[in-house]
Amino acid sequence: MKQSLGSMASVVAVPLPVWIVGTYGSDGAPNLITVSWGGICCSEPLCVSISLRKSRLSHQNIILKQAFTINIPNEQQLIGTDFVGLVSGNTVDKFSMTKWTPVQSQLVNAPYIDEVPLVFECQVLQSIEIGSHTQFIAKIVDVLAEAKILGEAGVPQVEKLAPICASPGDQSYYSLGNKLGKTYVLGKKLLAETTK
Amino acid sequence: MKQSLGSMASVVAVPLPVWIVGTYGSDGAPNLITVSWGGICCSEPLCVSISLRKSRLSHQNIILKQAFTINIPNEQQLIGTDFVGLVSGNTVDKFSMTKWTPVQSQLVNAPYIDEVPLVFECQVLQSIEIGSHTQFIAKIVDVLAEAKILGEAGVPQVEKLAPICASPGDQSYYSLGNKLGKTYVLGKKLLAETTK
Repeated sequence: MKQSLGSMASVVAVPLPVWIVGTYGSDGAPNLITVSWGGICCSEPLCVSISLRKSRLSHQNIILKQAFTINIPNEQQLIGTDFVGLVSGNTVDKFSMTKWTPVQSQLVNAPYIDEVPLVFECQVLQSIEIGSHTQFIAKIVDVLAEAKILGEAGVPQVEKLAPICASPGDQSYYSLGNKLGKTYVLGKKLLAETTK
Repeated sequence: MKQSLGSMASVVAVPLPVWIVGTYGSDGAPNLITVSWGGICCSEPLCVSISLRKSRLSHQNIILKQAFTINIPNEQQLIGTDFVGLVSGNTVDKFSMTKWTPVQSQLVNAPYIDEVPLVFECQVLQSIEIGSHTQFIAKIVDVLAEAKILGEAGVPQVEKLAPICASPGDQSYYSLGNKLGKTYVLGKKLLAETTK
C-alpha cells in the first residue's frame, strides 16, 4: 500500500550523479558549476544531457559557446565540488578558489579541470526549453582519463575512480557502495527458471 | 596528464540510476523496461527524462499513451530488475515472470509495480529525437511511496530505500555507499577559508 507524497519527487530520485560542468564566458573566463540534473541520453551518437537554470552564468556560457565539459570528481574532491555548486561565477573565480587548473579542450570550446580524473568533452546538439531549466543535449566528442583510474583493459574502473552520488532527499552525498552483481547475468537465472 | 579514450563515455559515466519504466500497450497489456539513461531534468515543472531505443515495445507504448511510471526498486528486487532489462515485452509477460503486480495509476495512463517501494507517475511533455534513442521528458504528477521507506518528516530515506546504482563500465550494479557529507555544508567551509 503506497501513499501519495505530492510534489517531492526531485528530492527522492536516487541515485543522481555529481558532475562538474566547465564552460567559457564571453570574456574567455573559465567557469564551473556542479550538476545533478543530468545523465546519458543516447548511444548513437553518444550523448549526455544536463539541465541548468536560466539564471546561471554557465547557462549563458553554453548558449554562447555551444560546448561544455563534464568533469567527474572523486570522493577526495568533494569539498571543492560542493563549493562550486554553492557560489556564482559572477562573483568569484571558482578555479582560483578551488585551486583547480583550467585546461582548454582541444576538441570543444570549453575548459576542463586538470585535477579531476575523468572528463567528457561535449558539443551541444540541442537546447530544450522545459520550464525553470534548459536541457542541453550534447555529443560526447571524446573522453579523457588519468592512467591511475584505468583497469587492465584500459577502461576506467569505478573502484579506482570512487565517484560521488547525490541523494537530494537528505541533501547529502554518498559514495558508491558494494558490487551487487553483473548486468544481464542475474536476470538470466530468472529467465532459466521460468522457462524450465 | 590525461589520455584520450575515444568513444567509451557511455560505459564510464557514473553513477547512473536503475529505474523500471511501466507502460501500457495498445491492447492494454502492462509492460516494463529497465533504464539507466535517465534523470531529473527540470524543477518547475518537476520533470524526469528517460531515453529509449525506437525498437523497444516501451518506446511504442509511450508514444501511444504519452505516459509512464518510474519504479525505483531496492536491492532485494535486483534479480527481477535485471531480468526486465534482458527480455522483450513482445515475447514475454514481464509482470507474470517477475511475479510483480501491475496497478493502474489513478493519475496517468500507465501501470506501476505494487511491490516496488517508490514510484513516480509521469505525463509526457516532449519527445526529443536524438539518434538511436528518443528522449521522453515528462512531468512528475505524483510520487507514491511505501510507509516503510519514509523517515520522520514523511520524506523517503535513502538508507531505507536501498536503491541500486548502475556502473556500465564494468557492467555491474552497486549499492549506495556511505554518506560523505551534506550538500552546501562542505563547500561553506572552503568559502569561509577563502574569504578570511
